[in-house]
Amino acid sequence: MPIILGIDPGSRKTGFGVISSVSGKVEYIASGVIRMDNAHSLAERLKTIFSSVSDIINLHMPQEFAIENVFMAKSAGSALKLGQARGAAIVAAVHHDLPVSEYEARKVKQSVVGTGAADKLQVQHMVKSLLSLSMSPQEDAADALAVALCHANTQQHLIRTASARHFRRGRLV
Amino acid sequence: MPIILGIDPGSRKTGFGVISSVSGKVEYIASGVIRMDNAHSLAERLKTIFSSVSDIINLHMPQEFAIENVFMAKSAGSALKLGQARGAAIVAAVHHDLPVSEYEARKVKQSVVGTGAADKLQVQHMVKSLLSLSMSPQEDAADALAVALCHANTQQHLIRTASARHFRRGRLV
Repeated sequence: MPIILGIDPGSRKTGFGVISSVSGKVEYIASGVIRMDNAHSLAERLKTIFSSVSDIINLHMPQEFAIENVFMAKSAGSALKLGQARGAAIVAAVHHDLPVSEYEARKVKQSVVGTGAADKLQVQHMVKSLLSLSMSPQEDAADALAVALCHANTQQHLIRTASARHFRRGRLV
Repeated sequence: MPIILGIDPGSRKTGFGVISSVSGKVEYIASGVIRMDNAHSLAERLKTIFSSVSDIINLHMPQEFAIENVFMAKSAGSALKLGQARGAAIVAAVHHDLPVSEYEARKVKQSVVGTGAADKLQVQHMVKSLLSLSMSPQEDAADALAVALCHANTQQHLIRTASARHFRRGRLV
């Protein structure tokens, strides 16, 4: 049962979502938001991300790690802060020998909602529906679950493509 | 004997410099450049930074960690990459419970050369002179040693200021 950890990194809040994916059937395991205290130093905030992501990995033992890629940041200053948070989360994954996959925000929305231009509410709604949740997860947690779902879909698509090729080869022989 | 690890982070090359500082007297211990392979994925490159900085910490056992702060990046894209590298290096420090100090590039140049507008060659020359090296270190290694020297100077200044205050208090009693 492959377990996927999805991360939506941010300099103030980092969302996480854990799902399992078996033969195209996805199931919710956990989600939440890692909050950084603004009163803390940069080093303390990055330690919070690294430690929290490490704790989530130790708790849920995912085999795969998916993280949202940032296509464009508002400014160089905010890009630097976001990069630091993203770096801390990725280092936690590679420190635990997890393979890391990156997905553009547009690709995540396309995969979950069906359009790359979907808004936050649509993402929350579809995440709730796809994972049969009784209520919508918080915004950052929903984004992280969406990245995990996007990864599950992509992997499933690769498996289907590989099987189809195998089948065609079978007929050719 | 406080040992200081200085880091000049970059998305392609990360410089490191290790010095000791005793009563204002600084001594060279080690320096070098961590190179990232462009053919590697982002996750592999960040793992290289985290693992290499961790190895340097385990080898030289510094008590303090100083890193150059980036005032302005050229673009949001390069700021994100630099932020990720910076985050990976800082996480290695906090993972080993080292206190992290940040210094603006101008402050580092001011501290080592005497002017915040110093160029790379002047920094290399002064690092070589201050640490009595027989040859100039590589550019990124020199920048990292300069951050470590800046930290040593700042700490020494704080000690002097604290001593002076203590002395004044002594005279007032």
